[in-house]
Amino acid sequence: MRDFLPKEKGTRNHLLAKIIGSYAAHGFQEIETPALEAIERLSSGDGGDNEKLAFRVLKRGEELEQAIGSGADALSDLGLRYDLTVPLTRYYATNFSKLPKVFKAIQVGPVWRAERPQKGRYRQFVQCDIDIIGDDSNFSEIELLNASLNALSAIGIGDARVRINHRKLLTDSISSLGVDSSQHAKAMITIDKLDKIGIEGVALEMKERFGEEVASATSSWLASMSAGLQIPSELMEIFTALEILHPGKLRFDPTLVRGMGYYTGTIFEIEHPESGSSIGGGGRYDGMVGKWLGANVPAVGISIGFERVAELVSESATSLKSLVIVFDHENQAAALATQAEAITAGYLVRLEITPKKLNVVLDSLKEQGFQEFALLEDPQSGFKRLNIKPIS
Amino acid sequence: MRDFLPKEKGTRNHLLAKIIGSYAAHGFQEIETPALEAIERLSSGDGGDNEKLAFRVLKRGEELEQAIGSGADALSDLGLRYDLTVPLTRYYATNFSKLPKVFKAIQVGPVWRAERPQKGRYRQFVQCDIDIIGDDSNFSEIELLNASLNALSAIGIGDARVRINHRKLLTDSISSLGVDSSQHAKAMITIDKLDKIGIEGVALEMKERFGEEVASATSSWLASMSAGLQIPSELMEIFTALEILHPGKLRFDPTLVRGMGYYTGTIFEIEHPESGSSIGGGGRYDGMVGKWLGANVPAVGISIGFERVAELVSESATSLKSLVIVFDHENQAAALATQAEAITAGYLVRLEITPKKLNVVLDSLKEQGFQEFALLEDPQSGFKRLNIKPIS
Repeated sequence: MRDFLPKEKGTRNHLLAKIIGSYAAHGFQEIETPALEAIERLSSGDGGDNEKLAFRVLKRGEELEQAIGSGADALSDLGLRYDLTVPLTRYYATNFSKLPKVFKAIQVGPVWRAERPQKGRYRQFVQCDIDIIGDDSNFSEIELLNASLNALSAIGIGDARVRINHRKLLTDSISSLGVDSSQHAKAMITIDKLDKIGIEGVALEMKERFGEEVASATSSWLASMSAGLQIPSELMEIFTALEILHPGKLRFDPTLVRGMGYYTGTIFEIEHPESGSSIGGGGRYDGMVGKWLGANVPAVGISIGFERVAELVSESATSLKSLVIVFDHENQAAALATQAEAITAGYLVRLEITPKKLNVVLDSLKEQGFQEFALLEDPQSGFKRLNIKPIS
Repeated sequence: MRDFLPKEKGTRNHLLAKIIGSYAAHGFQEIETPALEAIERLSSGDGGDNEKLAFRVLKRGEELEQAIGSGADALSDLGLRYDLTVPLTRYYATNFSKLPKVFKAIQVGPVWRAERPQKGRYRQFVQCDIDIIGDDSNFSEIELLNASLNALSAIGIGDARVRINHRKLLTDSISSLGVDSSQHAKAMITIDKLDKIGIEGVALEMKERFGEEVASATSSWLASMSAGLQIPSELMEIFTALEILHPGKLRFDPTLVRGMGYYTGTIFEIEHPESGSSIGGGGRYDGMVGKWLGANVPAVGISIGFERVAELVSESATSLKSLVIVFDHENQAAALATQAEAITAGYLVRLEITPKKLNVVLDSLKEQGFQEFALLEDPQSGFKRLNIKPIS
């Protein structure tokens, strides 16, 4: 978990506003859920491996007293959300009567995972999600990918690419390798390691798990990927619709797995040449929302990992002008009035009572991002008469 | 804890952006601290009664196993912050070498308190704080109050007022009532109830705690308040500097207490005629930051309770135009291209495949804030040829 200094926070605010603004421009609407959810919800199985990483909150008062001495599970009633998808399905079940039939949601906020500290992994980090609930057509996938690629362009990451697959194609492939459907989840875990351990590594693990024949079929299947791949009919509409605005940005990858168990259709992952890992991903999860409502509710979503994209953006200058007005102690009221005028003129204005060492103070403020300064020499003449100079 | 629907979230975003923008315009800089802090920090005594309301996070892994069976205190290593002041003092101690000598900070974010659920109290709520660390002059108080009153004006709450007192004046008064300085904290708790229980109630409680003589002196003291009060020299500079920009907004209130034990100088509370309780408050806490640094670091801050001010603001229209473009399924790519043009023209654009009942869908989207719609009748002619109509 990290503190953010003023400059970092300014850059993050700027990027988040651009992403949210871009999503909103595409007709998505922002919502908010609480950081804490009931622990049963966070342990329902929908969160996959992330469930083990949930920070659990201790019960309070009498309930805690009664639970003390019992096992760990009895001690906790709430937990910090580890993603924004599980809270969204709860939100939709709670609020669906007040939402449009097809709900296009933006969620941007922190999530928490009790990861072991390591480089580039944080225990509190921000996810930027959009989801479409209530539409089973492929146009939802098209809108999510269009909006995400445009949001990334808006922050200067125009060269992001999307790998795309379909869970049905994946399970068909795995069946044709000779893996029984009850073992598909295990096979997916192995295939998901392709980027890290290569074809030989995957084949070796498949051999250990499913025997020689499956391993050999896997090797042939993975080797055939290097040839040109036809885009399958399940994904053709998506490729066609996005080709004009995002030519060449999509790539069909029959080996793409995505870890979560809840995906039922298309799955996608956003990658960037300068990032070692994916910068976002998502897919269709038609069964998950309906489970809480007792109805069939299609849903598809995509999540951008904010810390990952923030690392890719070199510098983000906000366009706001900033000014330090230096004044003598006896002119406090006049300084406030001049500041008010300068704010109206579009400046961010820091007031500074004349210090002993003006240069030292101005240098330190320049480091904080202040660009210009002026001395309030004639207190009554106001902003227009200020002699504004760059901090050199 | 609450979910926010799209409209509520839109209003909250709009108000928060105005508040943060106004603070930034006055030369304050936004920072961010993590939601979780070490439990020792949250139990140091600086948080006063709020410490009892902290949500504690269960230890994990081996540490939890070792702690199971011990008392409640051993079970937790982290907690959710219950205010933004305690994290700020930790932040300053951690990062002061990278901060300007006089640090003017904005902190806006959620805090959590395990309150019993009741009307208008939430277990997750947003505070908007500004603080000045490193300046012992009264100009810090002047800047905080000026920026806060201007931020409130920016969201349409121009008729907020500030009650102001000084801890030294308060303790002098309590001494002169005949209360020993070791008993001052107790006396303050009683005087702090003046709004609720009136002069007679306060006198009765003072009698129970300190006897007849103190009670009688208290009654006289409180009764004398109804006469005109001279502004004391400790506060005169603040009144003078703010009189031009905020005439009549400040009121000296010698009975103002503010609950927290850490205040050392000026204290203030922001009130509004339409709000039963204060909408913000703060004061000088010169001892608290330095304690963690082993140095003398003056500090003063003010916090606006965001849920309280959000209730006072009737409606906040964002100025963005919004549009629903309705298109036939075969024109997906053209719809995306037209949407892109409409976004460039400044619209928030929701795409909608021609539904069976257009009127029902448009009515539902109007409820979500969409104002206009257009049918994409000629897919290739683009945004300029759209016939945009209000949703009636």
